[in-house]
Amino acid sequence: MAFKVGLLGLGTVGTGTAEILLSPEGRHPLLQELEIYKIGVRSLDKGRTLQIDKNVFTTDLESIVTDPAVDIVVEVIGGLEPARTLILKAIAGGKHVVTANKAVIARYGDEIFTAANEKGVYVLLEAAVGGGIPVIQPLKQSLGANRIQSVTGIVNGTTNYILTRMATEGADFADVLADAQKLGYAEADPTADVDGFDAADKIAILASLAFNGRIKLEQIYREGIRQISAADIAYAERLDFVIKLLAIAKREVTTSANSQPSTQDNLQLRVHPTLVPKTHPLANINGVYNAILIEGEPLGQVMFYGRGAGAGPTASAVVADIMNIAAVLKTETETLPHPLISCSHQHYCTIAPMEEVVSRFYARFLTRDQPGVIGKLGTSFGNHGVSLESIVQTGMRDHLAEIVVVTHDVREGNFRQALEEIRTLDAVDSIPSILRVL
Amino acid sequence: MAFKVGLLGLGTVGTGTAEILLSPEGRHPLLQELEIYKIGVRSLDKGRTLQIDKNVFTTDLESIVTDPAVDIVVEVIGGLEPARTLILKAIAGGKHVVTANKAVIARYGDEIFTAANEKGVYVLLEAAVGGGIPVIQPLKQSLGANRIQSVTGIVNGTTNYILTRMATEGADFADVLADAQKLGYAEADPTADVDGFDAADKIAILASLAFNGRIKLEQIYREGIRQISAADIAYAERLDFVIKLLAIAKREVTTSANSQPSTQDNLQLRVHPTLVPKTHPLANINGVYNAILIEGEPLGQVMFYGRGAGAGPTASAVVADIMNIAAVLKTETETLPHPLISCSHQHYCTIAPMEEVVSRFYARFLTRDQPGVIGKLGTSFGNHGVSLESIVQTGMRDHLAEIVVVTHDVREGNFRQALEEIRTLDAVDSIPSILRVL
Repeated sequence: MAFKVGLLGLGTVGTGTAEILLSPEGRHPLLQELEIYKIGVRSLDKGRTLQIDKNVFTTDLESIVTDPAVDIVVEVIGGLEPARTLILKAIAGGKHVVTANKAVIARYGDEIFTAANEKGVYVLLEAAVGGGIPVIQPLKQSLGANRIQSVTGIVNGTTNYILTRMATEGADFADVLADAQKLGYAEADPTADVDGFDAADKIAILASLAFNGRIKLEQIYREGIRQISAADIAYAERLDFVIKLLAIAKREVTTSANSQPSTQDNLQLRVHPTLVPKTHPLANINGVYNAILIEGEPLGQVMFYGRGAGAGPTASAVVADIMNIAAVLKTETETLPHPLISCSHQHYCTIAPMEEVVSRFYARFLTRDQPGVIGKLGTSFGNHGVSLESIVQTGMRDHLAEIVVVTHDVREGNFRQALEEIRTLDAVDSIPSILRVL
Repeated sequence: MAFKVGLLGLGTVGTGTAEILLSPEGRHPLLQELEIYKIGVRSLDKGRTLQIDKNVFTTDLESIVTDPAVDIVVEVIGGLEPARTLILKAIAGGKHVVTANKAVIARYGDEIFTAANEKGVYVLLEAAVGGGIPVIQPLKQSLGANRIQSVTGIVNGTTNYILTRMATEGADFADVLADAQKLGYAEADPTADVDGFDAADKIAILASLAFNGRIKLEQIYREGIRQISAADIAYAERLDFVIKLLAIAKREVTTSANSQPSTQDNLQLRVHPTLVPKTHPLANINGVYNAILIEGEPLGQVMFYGRGAGAGPTASAVVADIMNIAAVLKTETETLPHPLISCSHQHYCTIAPMEEVVSRFYARFLTRDQPGVIGKLGTSFGNHGVSLESIVQTGMRDHLAEIVVVTHDVREGNFRQALEEIRTLDAVDSIPSILRVL
């Protein structure tokens, strides 16, 4: 008996998915038990290159998610609607769902998984984060023995491509973005990528799995890469850092009165450009590649690396999810959901306010070239308990002295207060950049 | 109902495993359904630090694998015997088995999986390769949609530690080995690590999963790192390479008459020190870290990175396997093995003889300082169809001129024939090193 797949969408990922399913030779034998039963397309002119009976195509996507013959619905149309509605209708019809849609899951995961749990169906989404990199399933299955401490990812290929080119060419953001748009590595409207929205969607999904709770997307601190200058990249380089857009989810370890680490799930959740030490595993992830570093107890660090997008990698993840569902359908009893495949958490994680987050900072100041400026900066930082790792006058820019500061770990609130005081100093012209340091 | 675990061995990994099982808070909820029912130890004085009823300890390991109450046997004693016999008895008793024992699986996998398939039990071994890095389960489940083309790994932490220190310190092999032994990073008898036996066991396991066939361990070409000199590491550095001990399993793509890539599984299987270009993802894996790079169609490259050994990482993998079995036991019907967890291949992969393997080579020659030596070398290579990428006289050593050659891709047989001819040249004193290039 073959499992019937209803494919919604035949864009890049949909076509890649169909191509795998239509040529199972040399892949896992389970693929031979999967059948593309229907493909929902916007226009029947699509899909002409696929070697498949033309009767599988339909422009009526709703007819697929309500067709009693369909076992597994694969949503690869992207965007919020009609994707969300189609997924919910598929679930209501008792169908399992595979999706590559990080935007829908990050926003409506709550509604979707509640519905899926009620109907006893699976919703799998390996392709939503990191393209073909296995990270969702390892988080659910291979790393389950651990207390996860942090998930730190380069999860947006477009921004990593731009930052890599800025670093290797010494170029400015706007120039590289324009070129990336010409080459097809960035969208005409690059907002979702360069302002960190896409990375926020992805870290919401990863955090939810790593910390076993739901995430409110609007609680994620988000800062994009538009303000990164060639100067900052050059100073970072001199200080042995590279600048990467990181998505970070980290369990705050608070020590209670009896010195036992507390198990409460107060999470840091943030997306921002970050100075990464060159020796750190994430520092060498360049171009459109993605990598996700997970730290757990007793595991230590593991990192998953690969192409974060593209037809082939993403389709690889989509088909893996289809196979996982098919394997469960072949073997499981009616009564129980598979505890390592279903998503059962219901509570919301508590997210720490940014002013309480502790990290290191890099800041660049333009100051009037007066004696004692460095001392004044140091004093202001000291007034607010900010301990400095280095403070260096790097040169002159526009007749102003440029001073670069790297702090030790500091509560963000304290750092911000110090900056407020520094802004009032006569000697300080401006603070062109403030970045966090990993 | 709790699943009863019988733990064989309470060394580093066994203790790490018990510690996870005894403190399930903050880990996957399924852990709460696992119970340490028996622990087999060599002496009852062991295990005093574990918070567990002393009645679980026994020195009679066979009583554990034959106890009808035990659901899952965890073998972490290591070594070939009695591990192999205990695993087979556990299977004969209808128990599922989790093992971290690469040596037993690489040698007796055939016997063990045949027995497991007959009895309808699972044998899982995530901890056998790469410590806590999830790679076995991703190969079985997340990457199943792909036609795997190659698996290339740094899978032995000891040799990677030694090579990393040789590179950073410019030190010689023997000195670093002696220091590594003092520090506990290398065994008193370092043979299994430095001569590549451990890496061969691991690539046998990875290849078997990636290419869905059994592997005869003795067919793996194996070369260790004893002969690597500080000079070679320095020349590699100048040519923009680092030297790593790689374990490689690669499908040979032979093009048939109709230009279609053949699907026959003619594999390259080899462990040897390799010049890795500095820009390659594996070049940055340093110290005791492991990484496994997998290439597939349509996936492209993915890489898995982490600590390849140690109590915590290895126990993380052992417990993940226990959880996977428990999840299946909770949900599956009696009749079918889970197609993504069981190992069903029965045939042996065909391994290509080394003389037919195509790769690039690095060779270092000591020659008498005569005019025309480079020309003679070039001519000899040309006589055997070996095309050169570079040929450089790097300097003088012991009154002899040192010449370093890097070839383009060449059939190993042809390269060896060229070397035979070169050895007969009057001008050539010796060939101190011959290494492959990735």
